[in-house]
Parts: sequence; structure tokens; C-alpha cells
Amino acid sequence: MATTQSPALSSLDSTALREAVDAVLTQFLDEQRDHPPDAGLVAEAAQLTEAVRGFLAAGGKRLRPLLCVLGWAAAGGRGDTSPVFRVAASLEMFHAFALIHDDVMDRSETRRGRPTLQHTLTAAHAHGTADAEEVGASAALLVGDLVFAWSCRLLHTAGLREDRLSAVLSLVDDMRSEVMYGQFLDLVAGGRSGADVEAAVRIARHKTASYTIEYPLRIGAALADAPTTLHRVLSEFGRPLGEAFQLRDDLLGVFGDPDCTGKPVVDDLRAGKHTALLALALQRADPGQRAALDAVVGDPSFTEDDASRVRGIFAATGARDTVEQMISDRYAQAVRALERVPFPPAAAEAMRGLADAVVARTT
Amino acid sequence: MATTQSPALSSLDSTALREAVDAVLTQFLDEQRDHPPDAGLVAEAAQLTEAVRGFLAAGGKRLRPLLCVLGWAAAGGRGDTSPVFRVAASLEMFHAFALIHDDVMDRSETRRGRPTLQHTLTAAHAHGTADAEEVGASAALLVGDLVFAWSCRLLHTAGLREDRLSAVLSLVDDMRSEVMYGQFLDLVAGGRSGADVEAAVRIARHKTASYTIEYPLRIGAALADAPTTLHRVLSEFGRPLGEAFQLRDDLLGVFGDPDCTGKPVVDDLRAGKHTALLALALQRADPGQRAALDAVVGDPSFTEDDASRVRGIFAATGARDTVEQMISDRYAQAVRALERVPFPPAAAEAMRGLADAVVARTT
Repeated sequence: MATTQSPALSSLDSTALREAVDAVLTQFLDEQRDHPPDAGLVAEAAQLTEAVRGFLAAGGKRLRPLLCVLGWAAAGGRGDTSPVFRVAASLEMFHAFALIHDDVMDRSETRRGRPTLQHTLTAAHAHGTADAEEVGASAALLVGDLVFAWSCRLLHTAGLREDRLSAVLSLVDDMRSEVMYGQFLDLVAGGRSGADVEAAVRIARHKTASYTIEYPLRIGAALADAPTTLHRVLSEFGRPLGEAFQLRDDLLGVFGDPDCTGKPVVDDLRAGKHTALLALALQRADPGQRAALDAVVGDPSFTEDDASRVRGIFAATGARDTVEQMISDRYAQAVRALERVPFPPAAAEAMRGLADAVVARTT
Repeated sequence: MATTQSPALSSLDSTALREAVDAVLTQFLDEQRDHPPDAGLVAEAAQLTEAVRGFLAAGGKRLRPLLCVLGWAAAGGRGDTSPVFRVAASLEMFHAFALIHDDVMDRSETRRGRPTLQHTLTAAHAHGTADAEEVGASAALLVGDLVFAWSCRLLHTAGLREDRLSAVLSLVDDMRSEVMYGQFLDLVAGGRSGADVEAAVRIARHKTASYTIEYPLRIGAALADAPTTLHRVLSEFGRPLGEAFQLRDDLLGVFGDPDCTGKPVVDDLRAGKHTALLALALQRADPGQRAALDAVVGDPSFTEDDASRVRGIFAATGARDTVEQMISDRYAQAVRALERVPFPPAAAEAMRGLADAVVARTT
């Protein structure tokens, strides 16, 4: 039973799982390259599958696929794993879509330490025109749309039994809407005062937490016909853990090692990203600290020196410690939820390991 | 049998069909407003369903839903029409997604004679900041993503029998990829020489023709379990007619009455849109005409006077007449395909009526 999958489930960054998911993604992209929707599109299919292959190969923890397989194991899944890995891969493809469109909106220059897709596509289709950057952004928008469509196709061709397909599609529909609403919240919050902690947590919850932890687990569980009670427990585990994941991400974005995260430390601060960390610091800042934060956060010319100063304010106001405490609280809440149901031992162990890894991660 | 649907099928702009599809869309948006994926998203659900409602209400011929119902009738569909109308509505929602992202890429200011979604959203979220336009474009990109996700949800909740859902999803996956490749072709052609007629027709085929006529017909036919032979005939009918549709669109974009099309005549020319009409004119232009076209087409400051001059060149080079001939050839090809299969009489009549309307339309 579930224990046979334990090699792939025993750690957050399991090589075995990652390889299995990547094999599905590679084969899928090969299929799209070799069988475009029309014979007249062979060259474009080769070009765009290659672009997406490069994007996927550049990194990523394959966290969502792992959680999908874990949810399946937690619900007592057994037998043929190939539909499970295909659904898991579709979640990674959906994540790729979300990142690609995120980079288009943020006009980001790098992702995972490499040029973003729109930068690669700008170079490929520059034609020496002045609006090459616009063409690159539009191309990346279109590739994002295609990747969204591909995440659908991976699901549709997973070979699921009718009732399971129906259950999975319903969860997937909710997940997608929630992410998009969350992105919208984040976008419209961008121009407002950043001192609202509750608003920042709310954005994190909808934009990241739900589609990173809760839904992948529940989608996996649906593949093993999980009853409603199990879905509820997985939500009670996944929601706080997803928020902890995002809060850790916010800390890493300011205090992390760029060599590990693959992302310049200053990016979040330069973009004025609406985080709980920043909101807490703004709330508690004295007039001098407040003026210092207002002057540099969100400034396109934000420097490494500014970052040092901001880090000092985040520490001095206790904002950093409070966010660490928020992470611990959510971790404890998640772990408590695990005790409510007798999960298969290997799955319970993997979920606890996952919770530890999410909270302690450095990348 | 099929003839009972004839009121909705008897013309391209059937009021009955339009109302039935719009009722599904309205009800669906009400559901999304009243039941967001999380209780914390009530305000955002209200705001974004309202924005999409406004977009859908601004116009549109509901051509794709009509063709879906027509494909169903052509394949002998009978019985409960509610799943058919829901799938039909999902095609309109997909079309809305494509238009919204198109407007983001083109930075269009109007659509159907009204401000585009990003202009409305720019105003709603300006916050008085300098980058309000960027926020509006990002918001429209996100709303487009949400509308794509909603087109999926409409399909998933159509209550289709397992084998039909599977057949429809497979067609829908092909349709989506083809449109996105077509958009990509169009985008990267933008900066190149416009004298390639074959390339222009190829863009029209993938970007518009397939998802406007052929796929909606075939998706409808799949809802009535059409055999492979029928799918082939619908392709032989739909492909040339889809190309004719786009060629007519190109003519209307230059020679049409803006009061009917809802789109300023100069837009296509100002954007340097890669059409067969322009390609033919460039091919046949004498040096003076060529210089005149090169000077104004694609120029952001293109005026109504420039348009008169370009119209004159399109007529004098015979480009306009050749495009009319291309439309007639495709019309004849489509009508011949209809004779290969004994369709239900009402459906055959509606398809011929549709072909006539596509070729002769003024909006």
C-alpha cells in the first residue's frame, strides 16, 4: 500500500519524485512538439515547447506535484501511479503558467537566477525594432496562456475514472479561481498603504497558500476517493502551512541568501511587495523608521545599502520576530490537524516532514 | 428531432439562440459572484463578475455558441439542450478570454465601441499613481486568465456523459493550442515584411478560422456522438468558411462602416496588421504605391486621410478584388462540402444560411 511510495515521499526535495514528475513533463512536451494541433504548426510547436522546457528545467522544487502524490498516499491510494503523476505534473504546469504571467506583470528580468521568458523571447523576436520589449512581453503572455491550456490537457489525458475526473476538475476549478482572485488582490493592493497585516496575510492566503499546499493535497486525495472528512483535515493542515510557506518566503526575500533562493534580495523590497513583514514594520516604526521605509521601499533605484537599512528596521521593530512567531503558530496548527485522522504511517511521517521543511527551508 | 431547434438556428443572429446563451452566461456569473472559491473573496467576486458581465454585454454576435448548437443539430442531436447550451456558452467565454488578452497585447483603447477592460480597470484602480496604465493592463491580464478558467468551469459543469466529456475536452484542447499558436504567429510576423500572402492566410487560419467555425461545429457534433466521417465534413465546411470569415473581417477593417463594426476603420492599418489584403497590395504596388504604404501603415499617427489613400491603393492594385475572389472561392468550397452528407434538412439550411451570412456580413 502507501508505504511502497515512501522513497518519493520521505522528503520535500525527493529526487525520485522529482524525476518521475519531470519524466512526465518531458514526455508531454515531446508529444506537443511532435503532434501540434495542425501539421502547419510544426516549427512553432518546436520553438514554444523548447521555451517551456527551458523554463521548467531552470529550477523549482516540484512542491505541488509532491503534495499531490502525498495527498493520494494520505488517502490510502494504491495501484497504478501513472494517472497520479500526470495530475501531479499538471499542477506543476499550472504553477509555471502562474509564474510566467507573474513575470509579465512585474516586468521581471530574472527568475530562478536566469532571464525570464519574456527576456528570452524579446531577444528571439527583436527584429531590431524599438518595441522589442513589448513583443517579448506579449509572447510571454501567449506562452503563459498555452502553458495554462497544457496544464488542462495533462489533466484531461491522465486516464482518470469518470467520478475521479469530475471530483478533480471541481477542485481544480476552485483552485484556479482562488489564485486569480489572490493575484488580483495583490495587484490592487500595490498602490495602497502597506501597514495592514491582515490584508497582507489575506493576499498570501489566496494568491499562494491555497494552490501551493491545500489544493495539491486535496486533488491527490480525490484521486484516492477521499471522504469529505479527510478533505477537511487536509484543509486544516494545508491552509496554515500554506500561509507559513508564504511568510517564510517573505522572510527569505529580505533576509535569505540569494545564492540559495536564486532571487536578488532586493527584488521584493524594490517592488514594494505587500507582505506581512513590511506591514508589521510600518505599523510599529517610529517616525524616523517610517520615513526611511517610505523613502526606499518600492523605489526602482533601491540599492543593497537600502536593503541593509531596511533589514535593521525589520529587526529593530520586532517585525521579523513576529513573522517567525506567526510561522510557528501556523506550523503548530498544521501539525495538530494531522492528529485528527489515522493516516497511513508513511504518509503521516511525510506530511510532518513536509511541515518541518516548509517552516525551516532556506530556498 | 433537430427541426425543433430551428427557430434558434435559422439565422446567424438568431435572437432566440442569443438569449438562451446569454441566460446561461448570466446565471453562471451570478453563481461565481454568489459562491466565490473562498468566503473571504465576496467583494472581489462581485467586482470581477461585474467587469466580465459588462464586457460580454457590450456586444458580440455569439457566433461560436450558435455554431456549437448547429453542429449538434447537424449530427442529429436531440433531447435535453441544457448541456449543449452550457458548452456553447463556454465557447463564448473562451472567446472573451482571447479578446481580453488580445486587447492587452495590442494596448487597444476601445472594443466594440466601448473602452476596453484594461481602460475600465485602469480607471477603477488608478490610485493616482503614474503607472495606473500598467496596473490596468495587469488587471485585464488577470481577468483574462480568470475568464479562461471560467470557460473551463462552464464545460466541466455542463453535466456531460463521460464519453462525451472526453471527446469534447480533446477537441477543446486542440482548439485552444491552435488559437494560441496562431496568436504567436501573428505576433512574431508583426515586425516582418508584410508582402507574404500565404503567411497572412496561415495566421488567419490558425488564429481565427479554426476556433470561430470549425471547432465550435465539431464540439457541438461531439455532443451528439458524431462519427468520424461527419467530423471530417464539418472540417471541410468549417475551415474554408473560417478563412472567408477572417478575410471578410480584414476587408471590413479597411472598407467597413465603423458605425456597424464598432471599430475605427484605421485601427488595423495603424497597427500594421498582417492581412492578406495588405500583403497583396504590397506585392502588386508600383514603387510610388509601395512607398506610400510603407510610410503610413503601422504608423501610430495614422490618420483618416491616410486611410483614404490606402483604400485607393488597395482598390487600384486589385488587392480588394482578389480578396473578394478568395472569399468566394472559400464559400464555394464550404458549400460543396455540405453536399457530401445527408444532414437533417433544418441543419443543412442553417449551415447554408450561415455560410451566406459569413460571406456577406457588414459587422
